[in-house]
Amino acid sequence: MDKYVIIVAGGSGVRMGSAIPKQFMLLNNQPVLMHTILSFFQAGVENIIVVVPIPFIEYWETICNTYSFSVPHKVVGGGLFRSQSVKNGLEVIDETEALVAVHDGVRPFVSSETINQAFDTAQEYGTGVPYLDLRDSLRQIEGNESMHVDRDKFKSVQTPQCYTLAILKRVYNVPRLPSFADDAALVEQFGIPITLFKGSEENIKITTPLDMFFAESLVKSKKTASSFNLTS
Amino acid sequence: MDKYVIIVAGGSGVRMGSAIPKQFMLLNNQPVLMHTILSFFQAGVENIIVVVPIPFIEYWETICNTYSFSVPHKVVGGGLFRSQSVKNGLEVIDETEALVAVHDGVRPFVSSETINQAFDTAQEYGTGVPYLDLRDSLRQIEGNESMHVDRDKFKSVQTPQCYTLAILKRVYNVPRLPSFADDAALVEQFGIPITLFKGSEENIKITTPLDMFFAESLVKSKKTASSFNLTS
Repeated sequence: MDKYVIIVAGGSGVRMGSAIPKQFMLLNNQPVLMHTILSFFQAGVENIIVVVPIPFIEYWETICNTYSFSVPHKVVGGGLFRSQSVKNGLEVIDETEALVAVHDGVRPFVSSETINQAFDTAQEYGTGVPYLDLRDSLRQIEGNESMHVDRDKFKSVQTPQCYTLAILKRVYNVPRLPSFADDAALVEQFGIPITLFKGSEENIKITTPLDMFFAESLVKSKKTASSFNLTS
Repeated sequence: MDKYVIIVAGGSGVRMGSAIPKQFMLLNNQPVLMHTILSFFQAGVENIIVVVPIPFIEYWETICNTYSFSVPHKVVGGGLFRSQSVKNGLEVIDETEALVAVHDGVRPFVSSETINQAFDTAQEYGTGVPYLDLRDSLRQIEGNESMHVDRDKFKSVQTPQCYTLAILKRVYNVPRLPSFADDAALVEQFGIPITLFKGSEENIKITTPLDMFFAESLVKSKKTASSFNLTS
């Protein structure tokens, strides 16, 4: 089946305290989003759909020219919410059968290994979602109190989350999208089991200034992400 | 009340894939553990107890000389498990009333603000534990399946975890210590409520080579940790 990725770059950057949404901030002199697109291109994913907030579409086209960014990709306008952005991305896929990964535009360090595992897992099971073990102790909040829970019984999940096109079209084909945290949370509401595979810790999501600092350090080190991947 | 910190530096470094336990690895040419001790000294904590694995006590004393490390601290031999190490640290506190923070030796970037908040919270409520919001989506594992859970109902917890000496002496005064994830998990078993306060994201725990890389970048930038703390 053909492989697609919908890269969601619709954030407004509020948490960075910055006027520029974080997907456009420079990482080693190139916008974050270009790094992310390149990661999928280098992993052999040929159908790259990038969902950009509508007010930034012209800006994005301009900076693609400025940076001579030539990786082929289709630009789609985003919605007010992430779910609408994914749905808009799905609508430009003409095939009837395909595998579709949905990825955060601000996770530029996703490895080819993780991308391939997402597609392979979805090919076999219909869904493929990368997880990481929790590193700190975990407490569950109940009202004003909290109690210790076993962190081994929980996993954090990242992107790319990969699904068959049929599954995504089914769950997104509703007139009014419910609110949900990620695609896995939506998909499971339809009784479809989520298959997890182990992700990698360097696939960080750039959300805060400290993340941006770490990302900058990582990209400047010119090491491949996988060279740190001794422990997964 | 007098302020104590028990810095637990008992890890064997297995996860780093390294012969040197991570608390002794060099961060900007100084062992991680010295950075951690300095953070408490700079925050005005005068009674610093460092629990070191017994086979490394002589090594620690040697490197303190090598690095002319002059921050006063008491060295105590660790136990096989973290719980025994904390208990060994408690046993050298002669006072009857005090506030005691327990801290991971491999969290060198703890800020004075976090340290002071831990002590202040424990002074008022008996317990003070720093938490962070979860950043990724969360799934709960049940057998071979997993289900989405609302990450807002969970918090990850860090150190320093601060308690009154009376509380810690009570919970650790058992002939056979139960297995537990952190001090909060032990303390709550005695029906003592845990008071949380917001920690900071730069208080990272150095566990993997990627952590070490980020730590090295952070310390080399010569910025104070708090300069990244725009979002907490």
